[in-house]
Amino acid sequence: MAYEQYQSLVETLHDCMVACNHCYDACLKEENENMMADCIRLDRECADICAYVAQSIVRGTPFVSELTQVCAAICEACGNECKKHDKEHCQDCAEACFSCAEACKQAA
Amino acid sequence: MAYEQYQSLVETLHDCMVACNHCYDACLKEENENMMADCIRLDRECADICAYVAQSIVRGTPFVSELTQVCAAICEACGNECKKHDKEHCQDCAEACFSCAEACKQAA
Amino acid sequence: MAYEQYQSLVETLHDCMVACNHCYDACLKEENENMMADCIRLDRECADICAYVAQSIVRGTPFVSELTQVCAAICEACGNECKKHDKEHCQDCAEACFSCAEACKQAA
Amino acid sequence: MAYEQYQSLVETLHDCMVACNHCYDACLKEENENMMADCIRLDRECADICAYVAQSIVRGTPFVSELTQVCAAICEACGNECKKHDKEHCQDCAEACFSCAEACKQAA
Repeated sequence: MAYEQYQSLVETLHDCMVACNHCYDACLKEENENMMADCIRLDRECADICAYVAQSIVRGTPFVSELTQVCAAICEACGNECKKHDKEHCQDCAEACFSCAEACKQAA
Repeated sequence: MAYEQYQSLVETLHDCMVACNHCYDACLKEENENMMADCIRLDRECADICAYVAQSIVRGTPFVSELTQVCAAICEACGNECKKHDKEHCQDCAEACFSCAEACKQAA
Repeated sequence: MAYEQYQSLVETLHDCMVACNHCYDACLKEENENMMADCIRLDRECADICAYVAQSIVRGTPFVSELTQVCAAICEACGNECKKHDKEHCQDCAEACFSCAEACKQAA
Repeated sequence: MAYEQYQSLVETLHDCMVACNHCYDACLKEENENMMADCIRLDRECADICAYVAQSIVRGTPFVSELTQVCAAICEACGNECKKHDKEHCQDCAEACFSCAEACKQAA
């Protein structure tokens, strides 16, 4: 992976972690939280894996390909769930997730 | 910290992480999830810090005292929230949190 | 995944995290640390992914199969490196890694 | 904590995590790694706590003050160690650590 692609991927992962945690936090404050259960769950999964993979890449993990592959799958699942909800935090999160999934697939 | 106390603390932290994540998972499946929003939030906080501190201790972190102090505070907050709810997973979680808070305080 | 297999897998991941962090800590205290650079690096990769996957499983992640697959690959790589070194902490770590890789493959 | 301070803190924590992991990776490739053992150890402590605290803040943790306090202590310890070494990655890391310690103290 070239240095520029790597730097860009780390920032994309960080942005996705931020979007997912914002969405998680906002979903926990929604009135109809039950509708949001899957969103909360997937936001956490996606935030955690993005944070994990970002750190792994920066420390020179030999497993970039394996980790970005699983990260892409989780980002897509989270994006697909968030896309269903009209809330701005969900739509923003979906967009961040799909961008991140794309970047991960290129690295995998 | 003596080796036996340390081993025991790591297991207590692990047990608390397990109880908090069970409670988090169960709360996300509850019908009246809105009542559970604070529980879900604190379960994640507590599970994450317990997992973090357990790993830190095993790798010989020089910051056992600082980390167990913040962990004790988070365990107590989570235990106090879970204690309010009748569900078995909440009561079990509260118990695990208070045990873990106590163990952390002794190490801090 | 049946409940018993799941509980057993979480404990196996926890044991592997402990063994890898012990080995990491001990390698950082070795006189000839340069020989240990790959061991230190892989111990961290393996400890971190095992802790990550253990927590994911307990919180009901929908991605058990994907996560245990990447975990198995990292456990095997760490076990193969540790196996090369005579130190007891390396041999213990190799054993824990291979057990964990096996358990992960069965879950994947 | 005002939104701008919060956003700025999250980016500072992310930058410090990146600098610490770069330094960790570079130290593991140094010829005289024994000199670097404390640096490697503290880089990991610091990278991990910065990543942890960044994520906690974004998800709306109620424990910003407690977490940034322990993070400041770890950043300072890592900065003080890295400052001793002439390597560019160590000097860069020290600078990132001291900036992050300062930002954490203001939030604590």
